[in-house]
Amino acid sequence: MTSVSHKEQILPVPGLRLAAGTAGIYADARDDLALFELSAGAITAAVFTSNKFVAAPVIIAGENLHTRQPAYLLVNAGNANAGTGERGIADAREVCDALAQLADTEAAAILPFSTGVIGEYLPKEKIISQLPELLAGLNEDNWSACAGAIMTTDTRIKCCSEQLQLDGKPVTITGIAKGAGMIKPDMATMLAFIATDAVIADDTLQPILRRSVDRSFNRICVDGDTSTNDACVLIATNKAGNTGIDSDHPQLDIFEDAIQRVCLHLAQAIIRDAEGATKFVSIEIAAGRSEQECQALGFLLATSPLVKTALYASDPNWGRILAVVGRADIDDLDIRQVRIYLNDVCIVEAGGRSESYTEAQGLKVMQGQEISIRVELGRGDCNGQVWTCDLSGDYVTLNAEYRS
Amino acid sequence: MTSVSHKEQILPVPGLRLAAGTAGIYADARDDLALFELSAGAITAAVFTSNKFVAAPVIIAGENLHTRQPAYLLVNAGNANAGTGERGIADAREVCDALAQLADTEAAAILPFSTGVIGEYLPKEKIISQLPELLAGLNEDNWSACAGAIMTTDTRIKCCSEQLQLDGKPVTITGIAKGAGMIKPDMATMLAFIATDAVIADDTLQPILRRSVDRSFNRICVDGDTSTNDACVLIATNKAGNTGIDSDHPQLDIFEDAIQRVCLHLAQAIIRDAEGATKFVSIEIAAGRSEQECQALGFLLATSPLVKTALYASDPNWGRILAVVGRADIDDLDIRQVRIYLNDVCIVEAGGRSESYTEAQGLKVMQGQEISIRVELGRGDCNGQVWTCDLSGDYVTLNAEYRS
Repeated sequence: MTSVSHKEQILPVPGLRLAAGTAGIYADARDDLALFELSAGAITAAVFTSNKFVAAPVIIAGENLHTRQPAYLLVNAGNANAGTGERGIADAREVCDALAQLADTEAAAILPFSTGVIGEYLPKEKIISQLPELLAGLNEDNWSACAGAIMTTDTRIKCCSEQLQLDGKPVTITGIAKGAGMIKPDMATMLAFIATDAVIADDTLQPILRRSVDRSFNRICVDGDTSTNDACVLIATNKAGNTGIDSDHPQLDIFEDAIQRVCLHLAQAIIRDAEGATKFVSIEIAAGRSEQECQALGFLLATSPLVKTALYASDPNWGRILAVVGRADIDDLDIRQVRIYLNDVCIVEAGGRSESYTEAQGLKVMQGQEISIRVELGRGDCNGQVWTCDLSGDYVTLNAEYRS
Repeated sequence: MTSVSHKEQILPVPGLRLAAGTAGIYADARDDLALFELSAGAITAAVFTSNKFVAAPVIIAGENLHTRQPAYLLVNAGNANAGTGERGIADAREVCDALAQLADTEAAAILPFSTGVIGEYLPKEKIISQLPELLAGLNEDNWSACAGAIMTTDTRIKCCSEQLQLDGKPVTITGIAKGAGMIKPDMATMLAFIATDAVIADDTLQPILRRSVDRSFNRICVDGDTSTNDACVLIATNKAGNTGIDSDHPQLDIFEDAIQRVCLHLAQAIIRDAEGATKFVSIEIAAGRSEQECQALGFLLATSPLVKTALYASDPNWGRILAVVGRADIDDLDIRQVRIYLNDVCIVEAGGRSESYTEAQGLKVMQGQEISIRVELGRGDCNGQVWTCDLSGDYVTLNAEYRS
């Protein structure tokens, strides 16, 4: 029942082997392929982007997941295979077929994932030619290499492990993620792969993932742009020997909390590595009438260029925060009830600048690397939370140069 | 009936006198005050921001406009008098009282307007001390000076005149506006003041302004942030001698078209002078099911940091446009029916990259200074239009340094 809190240390998950490889999708010789092999009896849950221009691999992964339990996950970076129409679907299928043949399984047992530039055709031959080497290199200890292989504009790998006891048996949870821009997940994040050896019922895994994602990846925002390729996968290899977790298991909550902590750690790691970011910003919305209005206001603040540039400049120009609260679509908001805080400094109350506020207080908060913005709406008991970052000139430079 | 198309030439409007002055709200000696004096018989319409943290002057202007026809408009730049609570209201009233006393009218005859930094108290003494000089300097020819006095981060004045014939009488329309950031008007723009000498019925002026603003200022976007101080005012001095325009007047449409052209010219001038902007971008959404879904998608594209940085970089990274269309909240969008164009180059059709598209075509369009993005949704006959700009490092620099 004790849980080792998450660290930047990756523990292998019995029943899952991995390999990273280099297909040469990038100009330099960096890794750009990751392969996951699931042992017999493993089960898989997943959530995908809600973007309607959903990428070809996401369509196929969704279909295959409905057909049977997966045996392999194949991920490439450098090309999203999105906006590629029927040809993109055919290309992704061809890669799955090739892997199925080499691994002596059926194509429906493969879940493909891609991330990178949208609108260019998948370099399928490059990927297919590396499959034998990937299969030969499968190993339980390759998490870190795979975390590197799936990166795009990320500057560092994102990974996390937890260990806990279930029914007296040690259980491991390990996850990796990538993402630094085009981040406002809606159903999932860019790409995250989480595995556990816990024994768990098939119909319990998906709801656990859904709830955990809703409170982690679905609450982060770099730039408000939702990707065509978002996916978050949770694998349970069923090797740990615990009594199977189902909705009646007394330790369900403990297990779900651990999954959620891993998701949250990975989600926040994406924000900490966000394109051009210099600050980590927690936005809390409290005392709203519904969670929905709180989350919507949180995202409105997290996507305001004026709020984000003030954060970058360490400028307590809190009028910009007030202006965003004022433009939120909140019916009959009584602004006299609204309180806004920077960390524990009250900046707005009674419809305007707080009597107690001084510029020196605001400046001190804004000069920190971790800043919290808290808005109390004074109209209910619902809350919301969004993690975001500032907007720097480097974000613009990076995204103006991304393809060149 | 002929209409002189708008030029950067400002024609006086009989019945309206203006003055610009320097209260010293800015550190340098630039003009920061503008006063408008309306002759007896003039009528005024106005639309204001929908921001709930509406600025003190906007509250008072709205109240006074309901009380009686205005005699004076007083505008200051450099301080928004927003987020200033009850004290902000009292400060604005004190300035109105002082002007009313000097001008021998009542305070309700004054409409106050402010623009600048949010959250600092109005330097009312500085403003009041300049009122005698402003009154003494009133003149029909001071439009240009006033266009300069109301600027904040604007780099140039925005003004426009039209002349047309109504019932054989020459009629003039002249307008000025300011705005370069915190621009996504919702009901109005930052500040715009438009006057005409046309004779027009009181109950016809407001609907004309409302419709004209909906198709001009309400369709521009620099950064998605809606100001606390937006206002657009239309004054008719009733001096031109035409038969009074009402809803039955045969030349109502011609007059309204001219008002709308002036609004559109000023709105587009704001985009051309947008903070850090290097491109003027027209977004057209066609074949939607409702005007609302078209406008919403237009604004989603206009606020996407990834689309805007690609525009800045002249990079035909059209996958970012497709990703925004895909994340729009459009029920059961059939992506196979969607076509996306950069100017006249089709980039997306049949669910992905157009067969005919080449990178060279896209690059040629993106290198232009004026770019059109056209999305055909293929599901109806409604349209939308948004004018916007790119996102450059200079935008970040400007807004990181705005208060310093």
